[in-house]
Amino acid sequence: MEDRLSTPRAWQAYLEEHRQEHLDQLFEFLRIPSVSSLPEHKDDIQRAAEWVAQQLRDAGVPKVEIMPTAGNPVVYGEWIVDESKPTALIYGHYDVQPPDPVEQWETPPFEPAIRGDRIYARGAADDKGNLFMPIKAVEALSRTDGQPPINLKFSIEGEEEIGSPNLPPFVEENVDLLACDFVLCADGGMWGPDTPSLTLGSKGITGCQVNVRTADTDMHSGGFGASIQNAVRAAAQLAATLHDEQNRVAVEGFYDDVVPITDEERELFSQAPFDEQEYLQSVGATEIVGEHGYSAVELNWGRPTLDLNGFWGGFTGPGTKTVTPCEAHFKITCRLVPNQDPEKILKLLEAHLQKHAPAGATVTVDASTTGGSRAFRVGPEHPAIQAAYEVLGDLYDRDPYYVRLGGTLPIAATYQEVLGADMIFFSWGMPDSRAHAPNENFQLRSFDMARRAYCALFDRLATQSD
Amino acid sequence: MEDRLSTPRAWQAYLEEHRQEHLDQLFEFLRIPSVSSLPEHKDDIQRAAEWVAQQLRDAGVPKVEIMPTAGNPVVYGEWIVDESKPTALIYGHYDVQPPDPVEQWETPPFEPAIRGDRIYARGAADDKGNLFMPIKAVEALSRTDGQPPINLKFSIEGEEEIGSPNLPPFVEENVDLLACDFVLCADGGMWGPDTPSLTLGSKGITGCQVNVRTADTDMHSGGFGASIQNAVRAAAQLAATLHDEQNRVAVEGFYDDVVPITDEERELFSQAPFDEQEYLQSVGATEIVGEHGYSAVELNWGRPTLDLNGFWGGFTGPGTKTVTPCEAHFKITCRLVPNQDPEKILKLLEAHLQKHAPAGATVTVDASTTGGSRAFRVGPEHPAIQAAYEVLGDLYDRDPYYVRLGGTLPIAATYQEVLGADMIFFSWGMPDSRAHAPNENFQLRSFDMARRAYCALFDRLATQSD
Repeated sequence: MEDRLSTPRAWQAYLEEHRQEHLDQLFEFLRIPSVSSLPEHKDDIQRAAEWVAQQLRDAGVPKVEIMPTAGNPVVYGEWIVDESKPTALIYGHYDVQPPDPVEQWETPPFEPAIRGDRIYARGAADDKGNLFMPIKAVEALSRTDGQPPINLKFSIEGEEEIGSPNLPPFVEENVDLLACDFVLCADGGMWGPDTPSLTLGSKGITGCQVNVRTADTDMHSGGFGASIQNAVRAAAQLAATLHDEQNRVAVEGFYDDVVPITDEERELFSQAPFDEQEYLQSVGATEIVGEHGYSAVELNWGRPTLDLNGFWGGFTGPGTKTVTPCEAHFKITCRLVPNQDPEKILKLLEAHLQKHAPAGATVTVDASTTGGSRAFRVGPEHPAIQAAYEVLGDLYDRDPYYVRLGGTLPIAATYQEVLGADMIFFSWGMPDSRAHAPNENFQLRSFDMARRAYCALFDRLATQSD
Repeated sequence: MEDRLSTPRAWQAYLEEHRQEHLDQLFEFLRIPSVSSLPEHKDDIQRAAEWVAQQLRDAGVPKVEIMPTAGNPVVYGEWIVDESKPTALIYGHYDVQPPDPVEQWETPPFEPAIRGDRIYARGAADDKGNLFMPIKAVEALSRTDGQPPINLKFSIEGEEEIGSPNLPPFVEENVDLLACDFVLCADGGMWGPDTPSLTLGSKGITGCQVNVRTADTDMHSGGFGASIQNAVRAAAQLAATLHDEQNRVAVEGFYDDVVPITDEERELFSQAPFDEQEYLQSVGATEIVGEHGYSAVELNWGRPTLDLNGFWGGFTGPGTKTVTPCEAHFKITCRLVPNQDPEKILKLLEAHLQKHAPAGATVTVDASTTGGSRAFRVGPEHPAIQAAYEVLGDLYDRDPYYVRLGGTLPIAATYQEVLGADMIFFSWGMPDSRAHAPNENFQLRSFDMARRAYCALFDRLATQSD
């Protein structure tokens, strides 16, 4: 493992010496079945929180507290070393997904095992493995230098896998406690084992369910099909008004607040290691279909969408039923880009749906099903991104890629909105880590890289502020 | 009960004298739970067939046979009285719908009861009550005149409630045996208890299921929604191409063979006792929505349609799932008018669906789910229609209405195509007979009217041919 790290530091030797001990500790953590979605694991959730708190204390963090929320507790840690140095808030979660289907695991999900170059267990990547790394970095710095070179706070939650319902109120109620310069997210992924990447943004979201009704009862199509509105037809026609022939969203005002992709972004996107053929093959699709005028990567990272997630109405069984359906339904979510306001978009969408309601059809919009969240964006010029870029470049001996997510990270928006702190993703999930699936795994290479990377990042951030 | 029947006939007194006996017999018939869709009633089906055969023999029909089919048997009867007289083939069915939901019946479905002016039982109207009437008419004529005044054949099937799968082959294999001048259908209905009507047509049908696929697997909308075709969106867009803004069917060639509604028909339709407000209120609809330029009754009786019977795809549960669906499906049936060929229409429809398949979507059409059937039409000038018109006019002391059905009667098309015999509906189901539903009933007024009507019709048809 060669890298460009120039000055040897004491933590390097410490990490190598304690490798097995750290592995054993991670295995201990992975054995706790802290499944947040299953009530029978309530005690395991508590055990996992206490395990994290004890790890922080053992690492030397002077202030550690298990803080209650309306749901599972947040483990809070704080080590202020120098008010003139930057303060990083480290985010992660100690809860995991259920292990189902258990029979598809090669080794039991809560009995961690090493096979080949990987650690297999539920939570190995998402997020126990990743979360463990900054703690070990703090430990290494604490044991070798006496303390970390910058101020650190930890906010480790236990409800990420059930949608973090209590994290936004926790952040809002603890603005002063959590105050920081930026958030380091120890949850997420890297482009590939040899292709380090930094995530500069994710999309916002809003959505609704659309209900279309044309009569009180399903009707015989022979008696009513010719002269009474058909709810399935009306709903399909309404859904079809949502995009134009260029696959643009046809909702009036939808693009009003969208900042066009800049030449600089276009250049950045084009450098991403995105292989269109591989992408299509991964889902068995035949061609890129999206808003005209953009490449797939530009669409995925830079353009807002309106997605139909489901549709149902009338007779859906085998064979034929000559029914004229009286009701039909479809579900919409929109992926938003920065500067788009989820609430405003929802209002525009509702207005469009009412305006285009077909004759004889009553359209109701239920917006209670999808919570709104703004897009998240951080610039490559952010000092912590710069520091992370340099650290990863040194470690992997190649420049990291800048990437974005087409998905939504509500917590990133929450920290940005409530604390004014940007989120820097610094984590080692891989495309084949099988998060949420059987045989979840974490690469041993990542285990070594990540502990060193966090130490080097803390060092670099301390120097940067000098 | 006044009517315009001028010359008293002996059968009139006979029917009055034997009213209670006939009622008792009908009750006996109604007690047989001859449900064709439930295998456990196989013996009851056989009992019902034998009961009908015995009734025909008791009525004096000289040739009666229970003829096997690949399914339930057909009861065949034949009484040729005079080769110079017309031959009527009487159609009906001895099988019934299941009684579910049983708990909603006021009296048990297979224990017939009289309440107020009605007989309540499963099959009271559909079709045991109606089918019983021509048998009693033959009996009355046989006992008073020695024989009916025209030639009669009976073809009473036991699979109508499961779609008459074995009737077309039965008719095709017995063309000579069933040869007749016209078919009298003792199954169906009247406009209302005081508004006699004659049905001059029904629509044809064809249909298919449309399957839309865009990928091998459902996808995360964050990773794929912006650049991979969404199957629900593609299916909705495809479904929306099937009609134009005037609600006309937009399938190229769909109307090519349609004979426009004539001024004469338009006049006939406008005389029908069709109340638009009542019609809308009956299903809770707010306005007539159909092909522009036609009234509701013109649409229902005279114009072909393309109906979406069902649609499904993607996530349809409560809440939100940010999925980009890889498949979606919808079901179509078309109601056709005379001169439209179901097979040709299906081909046009398939061509349209392929032509309009959205980018990135594979469209497959499964036409195996709906059997095709041509429309049925008989003119008011048909001698048997004329005879029926006069008989009903005399009995009810008012002219009957000419009506059509928006639904499909495959057997009418079968008899017309295979035997060259038009079907004349002569039956007493009422809009509130609750066929196929709990508390099915038959009016006592119909019980008296129908027996007389069949006798008078046979008389009139005999005179007509003189």
